[in-house]
Order: sequence, then C-alpha cells, then structure tokens
Amino acid sequence: MPYERVSLSDASWLLMESRERPMHVATLLIYSLPDNAGDDYLGNLVRDLRGSTEFADPFNRRLVDNSLRLMTPMWTRDYDLDMEFHVRHQALPQPGGERELGMLISRLHSNPMDFSRPLWEYHVIEGLDDNRWAVYFKMHHSMVDGIAGIRMLQRSMSADPEETGTPALWSAHPPVEEHARASHSPLALLRTAAHTVGSVVGVGRGLLSIVRAARDRDDPAKLPFQTPVSILNHRIHSQRRFATQQYEFERIRKLSKQAGCTVNDIILALCSGALRRFLKELGALPGRALTAGIPVSLRAKDDEGAGSAVSFIIADLATNIADPQRRLKSISSSTRRAKALMSDMPRDTIERYTAAVMTPYSLQMLAGLEGRTRPVFNVTISNVPGPTEPLYFRGSRLEAMYPVSAVTHGQALNITCYSYAGTLTFGFAGCRDTLPHMQRLAVYTGEALEELEQVFSRANKSGGKAKTLSAVVPKRERSTASS
Amino acid sequence: MPYERVSLSDASWLLMESRERPMHVATLLIYSLPDNAGDDYLGNLVRDLRGSTEFADPFNRRLVDNSLRLMTPMWTRDYDLDMEFHVRHQALPQPGGERELGMLISRLHSNPMDFSRPLWEYHVIEGLDDNRWAVYFKMHHSMVDGIAGIRMLQRSMSADPEETGTPALWSAHPPVEEHARASHSPLALLRTAAHTVGSVVGVGRGLLSIVRAARDRDDPAKLPFQTPVSILNHRIHSQRRFATQQYEFERIRKLSKQAGCTVNDIILALCSGALRRFLKELGALPGRALTAGIPVSLRAKDDEGAGSAVSFIIADLATNIADPQRRLKSISSSTRRAKALMSDMPRDTIERYTAAVMTPYSLQMLAGLEGRTRPVFNVTISNVPGPTEPLYFRGSRLEAMYPVSAVTHGQALNITCYSYAGTLTFGFAGCRDTLPHMQRLAVYTGEALEELEQVFSRANKSGGKAKTLSAVVPKRERSTASS
Repeated sequence: MPYERVSLSDASWLLMESRERPMHVATLLIYSLPDNAGDDYLGNLVRDLRGSTEFADPFNRRLVDNSLRLMTPMWTRDYDLDMEFHVRHQALPQPGGERELGMLISRLHSNPMDFSRPLWEYHVIEGLDDNRWAVYFKMHHSMVDGIAGIRMLQRSMSADPEETGTPALWSAHPPVEEHARASHSPLALLRTAAHTVGSVVGVGRGLLSIVRAARDRDDPAKLPFQTPVSILNHRIHSQRRFATQQYEFERIRKLSKQAGCTVNDIILALCSGALRRFLKELGALPGRALTAGIPVSLRAKDDEGAGSAVSFIIADLATNIADPQRRLKSISSSTRRAKALMSDMPRDTIERYTAAVMTPYSLQMLAGLEGRTRPVFNVTISNVPGPTEPLYFRGSRLEAMYPVSAVTHGQALNITCYSYAGTLTFGFAGCRDTLPHMQRLAVYTGEALEELEQVFSRANKSGGKAKTLSAVVPKRERSTASS
Repeated sequence: MPYERVSLSDASWLLMESRERPMHVATLLIYSLPDNAGDDYLGNLVRDLRGSTEFADPFNRRLVDNSLRLMTPMWTRDYDLDMEFHVRHQALPQPGGERELGMLISRLHSNPMDFSRPLWEYHVIEGLDDNRWAVYFKMHHSMVDGIAGIRMLQRSMSADPEETGTPALWSAHPPVEEHARASHSPLALLRTAAHTVGSVVGVGRGLLSIVRAARDRDDPAKLPFQTPVSILNHRIHSQRRFATQQYEFERIRKLSKQAGCTVNDIILALCSGALRRFLKELGALPGRALTAGIPVSLRAKDDEGAGSAVSFIIADLATNIADPQRRLKSISSSTRRAKALMSDMPRDTIERYTAAVMTPYSLQMLAGLEGRTRPVFNVTISNVPGPTEPLYFRGSRLEAMYPVSAVTHGQALNITCYSYAGTLTFGFAGCRDTLPHMQRLAVYTGEALEELEQVFSRANKSGGKAKTLSAVVPKRERSTASS
C-alpha cells in the first residue's frame, strides 16, 4: 500500500519521543467478573482477542521502518500483526490488591513501545482481588488523542450485561455518523487550526502571548501571579509511578452545591489540598501558589448553537492558603475569571488558542521549555466526562476507568479525572524519581475531601440552615497506588 | 565520591547499547518452595530483599548522568537505591506453566534498563506450577561478564537446605581468595590482553586474520567452507523470545560415550539437528553448513600447569547433512581439528586470540559487521559447567538455572547451556521477529536427542555388543518457551 504522511500534529508526538519521555498514553479499566465466569474466562478471553485480526484504523498503522522514522515519519499498514505481542496476559502477585495493581501499571507505563510495530498494546491482568480483573490499554500519542481514545474504548463496550459478542477494541469500526462528528472534534479542529496558523513554532509563540495577556488582564494590580518553580517542573527520568483514587460522584456534586462552585472547582481543590500537604511534607511547597493547566469546556461570546468549545485555562491552585474554605474560594474565583475572559473572545480566537495549546510543541513551550526555565503552569489537571450508565465487556461490568497520561520535561505530574456511572476516578501519573511516595497524593485528596465536607457541614449548621448533609457512604471507594 | 573511568572493555558494551540491541544479560533461576513454606513466603522474601541495602561491588555502581553517558561513561556510586525499582515482584497467569514463564521472560528481556540507576534488576516470580517459583536476574553487560555473573549467583546460594540466612545477591561480598582468582579469570586476562594488543579496532583486525588462517589451514583442499548467510545473521529488532529445555545430564553423557565424542559435541549435534529442522520448516535452511562460534576450554602446547585456557573456536554444524550419525561425526571432527590447531599455538597466542574474540567489538566484527555483511559464524553456542551438588536459597532448592543472553545485529540467536546437579539446561535467546515459533527449536533438540539415541542403540545392537543402553527415564525434563 502507499505510504501516508504523518500529520504535523501526530508527527510532533514522535519528535518528542525519547527514552526519558516516552509519549504513550494509556487507560486502566477495572472489570468485575461475571457471576458465571469459569476459571478459564480470562484465558479464553485472551485467546479469543488474539484471534481478532480484523483491524479498524489506526490499529494496523505502523511507522515505515527507516533510521529516521521518528524524524521524518510515514505511516504504512501491517496486515499480519504479532498478536501475542499486542495482546498480553499479565498477573498480579498476592494479595492482588490496589497496591500490587499500581506497581504493575507503573512498570508497564515505564516501558517504551516498539516503534517497528503498530503502536498499541492491550494487557489483560488477572489476579485482582474481589473477583475483578483489569485491562491496561496503551497507545502512542501519535496514533490517538485522549478524547478519541476514550470514544474508542466506549465503543468497544456494551450497555447490555448479556451481550457476549462485543468485538475487540481494535476490530470495532466506528459508526459512519461518528466519522462525521469526528471532523468537528477538538482533534480535527486542532489539526485544521494548526495548519492555518502556520508553523508549529509560530503557534507556540502566538500562544505564549495569549497566555501572558490572559494573565495580565486578569487584574494586574491585585493578582500579578507568577507561576513558581516547583519540583514538578524539572527534567524527568524514564520511570513512572501511577496511583488512583475513586469517589462516589454524588459526594463531589453535593459538596459543589454546598460550596456554590463547580464540580471542576472541587476537583481542583482536592488536588490542591493534596499537593499542598504532599509538597509540604517533602519540604518543597513553594511560597507562591501553584498553578494548573486545565482543559475546559465553555461557550464563546458569538456561539449561537448548542455546542460548546473545548479550551484550556490556567487556574490558581491557591496552595499557599492554609484554610481549605478560603483555598476553594480562591480557586473557584480564578477559574470563573479565566472562563469569563475566554467567553469574551470570539469563537475563532478560542479555536485558534485551543489548537495552539493542544499542539504538543506548544504544550512543551507552555511547560517551560523542557524543564529548563520557569514553567507557565505547574501541573495539568483534566476532567473527562464519561457515560453515566454502566458499561459491560463480554459480561464483565466496567467498575472504573482511569486515564494513565504521559508526563514530560517540566511537567512531572499529570492528574486526570474520569466520571462514569456514578463514580469519579482520579489517575495520577508521575515521574518516579520526582515523586517519591506518590500514592500519598491519592490518599491526601481523600483527606482534602473530608476536610471540605466538614467545613461546609459546619457552615450549613452554624448558618442555621435546616438542611443537614445526608451521610454519603461510598459504596466503593478505592485507591490504587504504587509507592 | 570520585568518579571512576569505565574500563575499555565495559565501555564497549555501553557504546553498543541501542533500542534494537539492549546489551543486558540475565539468568533465570527456578526454585522449588520449601515444604514448610507459608502463603507469605515470597511476599516476605521480597520485603526482606528490599531491606537488604548493603551493596557489594558492582551493585551500587551507576553511570554518571550526562547527555553522553553511553559515549564517555564514568562510574559513580549510589548509596540510596530505590529498592522497589530493583527488586520486583512478578506473577504468572494461570496455569503458570513453562509457556507462561517463557512469555514473561521474553517480555522482561525485551525491556531496556534504566541507565540513570545501577544496572541491575532482580525479579521474584510467583505463580509457577508444581510448587515452584523463579528469579529473573538482569544486569547490564558493562557491569558483569557471564562467568563473573554465574560466580556471583553461586555465591549467593548455599549447599545447606536448612540455611535461611543466605544474604541477598547484591549484599554478598566476594571472599578474598576469589578476588585473587578473579585476576586470572578470562575477563581479567581479556582486559590485560586487550590493552596489550592496543586499540580495540586493532584487536578486531588481528582476530579476523587469525580466524581466517585457522579455517584455511584446516585442510584447504577438502574443506574450504565459507559460512553461509542465514536468517540468523541480519539486523535485529528490539523484542526478544526466550525458550528453555532441560535434560538429565547422564543421558547426554551416555550418548557421548556411545558415540565416542565429547559432551560438547552432543550439545552441538542437538543444536544442529534442531536448527536444521527449524530452518527447513521455514524454508530457510542454507545449502552450506551453518557454523557456530563456541567458547572452549583447552590445554595449550606450552602449558605445564594444571590450568586450562578458555578460548573460542568455530565449529562446522553440518546442518547440510541429513543423516544424524554422519552429522555428529562431522561436527565432532570439526571441533577436534579446531582444538588441535589451537593446542599447537603457544599459550600467549591463545590468550591474545581469546582476549580478541571476547572483546565486544571484536565479536561484532566476527558477527559480520552488524548484520550487513557475510557472518564469520552463524550462531553462538556456549556450555557453562556449574556445580554438581544441589544449591539452596533460604530453604528453596535450585532446580534449574538458565542463562538468558543478549543477541545482536548479525547474531539473532544465542544458545547457552548450563550443567547443574545432574541436569543440563538449554537457554535459547533470540530476536522475536527473526525467530517466529522459537520454542520449536527447544522441542526439536529433544527430537534430535531421541534420534541419536536410537541410532547408537541400534548400532550397538547390530554391532553385536552385549551392552544394551539402559533406559534412561528423565526425572524431570521440561521445556519453557514463549511461542
């Protein structure tokens, strides 16, 4: 077949690839076994998946083999994949709890991919306690963006617990209407916009001025904040840590209502509280507040349709404020201001800005020139909304889904949340050397949550309001972490 | 502490390192659990090993971190190792047989090491059937040569099954007398000789003429053999396969006596028979005989002491001969001739030759300039003699030990045998893409063995000899393989 040029945007992920900074992303999926599952359920599943050799795009795409394949990349197609390589059967040592899972994911995420094959791996993990199993699904960022990846995963599951014929992820062709929608996706938009603006470097420069302008206009007299240099913003090494945390979504929603802010603000406040304590214990909490780069969804000034644009703002995490209520208030007003500012922009400016921010090289520049200069923000925190109804894969119920992101020089930590069927999950991906004991970050978000709940429960009571918080007992809240 | 120059020989392993050709070597150790082992035996062992933070040389040596660390390497010492990184707890999926073990080892051996840390990893593997567990111990070739590595491993075990205090491998300091012996080891010799001869390139050139001379003098009229190009001698990719085979040593020894040849010749004949069938099935058996590069131990002409020199010969594997008996005969006379030729050399010539061959760059040149030209030999086959009495580690009996070698451009397959406590084990390490279904190679050595046994059993009978082969029923013969 003819070779195909790798798009500018995808190529930039390949140019960034190095041993210290592999540019793959992954998703961890936790399933519960069906009640009637035999001992050979997973063994049969692996065998069956290896036999699924029908490949939807981009699963049989691979880089043309030449010595400069990362510099001048071209795609070709493989029609005979080594399925034992791509579909792997893993197991956890005893007792098979969240700790053992976290350690395995950390190791798998530290391993570079094989660039002579299609850039994906699907790991079936057995030995997870409580009758559960897991999938660690890894792709190179040049083959998929985050949103398309999650759409793919959702497509490969079913709302029907009885459905046993769900195709393998790589064999599920997207429905035609999704193809159509895809051209309006942030990724498609990004590609178009990136080409419009011109060279990648040009985009980066334009972007920096937008970011600076946005911050300066924020209220220069009162808040001329400058992002501090923190341990999160130096050069990284090749090994990763991964930790998770899962909450009942209702708990977060209630708190946001009591506090009069968005769910996103609560997520930021939990991350902020956890980061504050974590860095303080390491003796590494900067005097100035940390900032977070956050993809947000917002309505532009001239947007008459129902659609919303996805964009990117920088929020003040207020990690220099000890009082949790004041900290949340500060975070919330910072995100409100940033969104208001963006909403004042016309839609095409937002799109250009978004495209600029989401282009990998620009992110590099935002991240502070590869960890060698002051960062523009300290940490990336994303919140990806997922389906509200439970999903199944061949009779196994999806219990939780965690994005496992890439980290890069100048950005040693990435926090991504995912909401699904009444739960909110946090995935923490970090550089192993930069973040010792990273599981504590996951645990500390729970403490930050309890602290805020107490504050607003007290506030409601002392305010004489009749409504008392109903005790929200989480059905299942877990924390997966490698130390 | 002051930096330390990396020796010429060790540095060359670092220079060779690349994503396609990681230069680490490993050993797979299979243990049986002690009878009284509780469920927490391995969990406790891992915890305890992680707590062993006393490091004998070279276990806390690491490369000084700079952007050219592989080009201009310097050693420094680490006194605070990340023990969860170095000591890893792995598990096999069900049913935990030789196949699952082979697949795990193949994957672990495909993963590159982290050059910002001391270059070793110790993996404790649970879930192996038959009440067994395993260790996969990996080191970079720049930190250890094969013989020193095996000596290290033996030192970290005990002949006493009751001994529970055996130190961790990395905490066991070598006894003083071993230090003394070490200076006469092939490695020490190699280093000295390499320096004597001069530059590495010079060594390589001198070596090639020695090899050519050896072959030409072999009997130019009758055997002007030229090593054929085979699928084993092209450039390799980054992924590995590993397979094993285990035989009762007695079975091999008996056959060698019946056939009137050495145990080494039988090993070569098994490899030859297996390679012949394997390549034939792939439609890739060259018309000329394959050749093997083999480290051998021999007595030099002027050697008056009891010691023997370790050297390197090239043997004719006679893979172009269909008849197993004639094939063995051809192999055996080829090794006899090569050894006779070497024995005629004075000891210092042998030493120089050996040093030349064992220097990594020379091996590269021997291997045919990185897989781009005709190879000097097709495959490396080594036989490492181990202890004859059983060894134990904290109550677990060592059942088998398999070297897991590095492969390189032009040498996609390495076969290393190890004899221990009445067994002979074969470890096959190969490039995953070059050698599909590599486990068959392991299985075919068994068929080659049966074939030869039948031939000599018949020969003995028809020759009217009274002595019949006693039926040798192997107590435990296993084959671990990834497909």
